[in-house]
Amino acid sequence: MRVLGIDCGSEYTGFGVVEQAAGGKLVCHTQGAIKLASRTAMACKLEKIFVELKAIIAEHSPEIVAIEDVFYAVNVKSALKLGQVRGVAMLAASSGGLEVAEYSPLSIKSAVVGYGRADKGQVQQMVMRLLGLALPPQPTDASDALAIAICHIHTASTMNRYRAAAP
Amino acid sequence: MRVLGIDCGSEYTGFGVVEQAAGGKLVCHTQGAIKLASRTAMACKLEKIFVELKAIIAEHSPEIVAIEDVFYAVNVKSALKLGQVRGVAMLAASSGGLEVAEYSPLSIKSAVVGYGRADKGQVQQMVMRLLGLALPPQPTDASDALAIAICHIHTASTMNRYRAAAP
Repeated sequence: MRVLGIDCGSEYTGFGVVEQAAGGKLVCHTQGAIKLASRTAMACKLEKIFVELKAIIAEHSPEIVAIEDVFYAVNVKSALKLGQVRGVAMLAASSGGLEVAEYSPLSIKSAVVGYGRADKGQVQQMVMRLLGLALPPQPTDASDALAIAICHIHTASTMNRYRAAAP
Repeated sequence: MRVLGIDCGSEYTGFGVVEQAAGGKLVCHTQGAIKLASRTAMACKLEKIFVELKAIIAEHSPEIVAIEDVFYAVNVKSALKLGQVRGVAMLAASSGGLEVAEYSPLSIKSAVVGYGRADKGQVQQMVMRLLGLALPPQPTDASDALAIAICHIHTASTMNRYRAAAP
C-alpha cells in the first residue's frame, strides 16, 4: 500500500509518500514541503499547491491520499485560509481518481508516537525511526505529512486484520 | 468588461456572468447554482464545482472573477467547509489565467441595493431590475453571485473615472 500524506497549511504544505512493503516494512519515497511566499496572491498560492501535488501524484502513484481532519483554528479567517488549502489538496486527489481519508490529530499522534498529545519534535523523531531515515524530516510540516500517511497505513492494516479474523 | 461572480457555499455555489456593454448597460450572459448532493464525499463535491466553473469560464470568457470576502462563519467546521469551496473557486479562476477580486458582503449589498444590510430578497429584486431580467434569479445563490459581479463592475467603473479625472 502506498499513501500520500498531506499536511495542509497556509505557509507550508507538507507532503510525504510512504509505502508498506511486503513484510510490513515502511519505506519513504519522497517528502518535503511546498513553501508559499507570503506576498503572493492567494489564488496563485493555491495554484502552486495544486500543480505540485498533482506532480507528486503523477510521479509516485499513491493509491490513496490521507489528510488531517481539523476541528480547531485560531479564528474564522485562519479556518477559511486553511480550508482553501485543504480544498485544493482534496481536489488534487479527487481529480487524480484517488480517495481521501481524514484522520484527527489525536489519531495521527497516537498511531505514530503512541500518545495523542505528542509534540511536533516527538512526531519528527518517531517518523525518522519508523521510516529508517538518517535525519529527521525537515520542516516539521514534512514529518507531520509522513505521520498522516503512516497513520493511514496502520489504520488500514488493523482493518484488514479485523476483516480477515471475522467469522 | 465581463465578470464572473461566484457565491461560494457548501450546499449551493451560485454563479453569474455579467457584462457592462457600451453605454454602461448591464447584460447577464448566464446564471445559476451548482447543487451538491449532501451524501457525496467532499472531494467529489469539490471536483464537481471545479469542473463546472472551468466550463463556465471556457464558455463565457470572463476577464475577471469576483467572490465574496468572508469574515463570519457559525463555527470553525463551517468556515473550513466554506474555505474548501472558496479554494477550489479561486483555483478555477487562477488556472484559467484570471485574477480574483474579493468584496465584503457590505460592499456588495451597498453597490446593488444602496444599503449594506439589505436582505437576500431585496438583492434578488435589485439584481433583476439592474439586469433587466423577466424573473428574479433563482436560487438566491445565483442572485448573490450576480450581485458580486455587478459590485465589481461598479467598483472598477468608479476607479476608472477616478483615474481619468486625476491630474
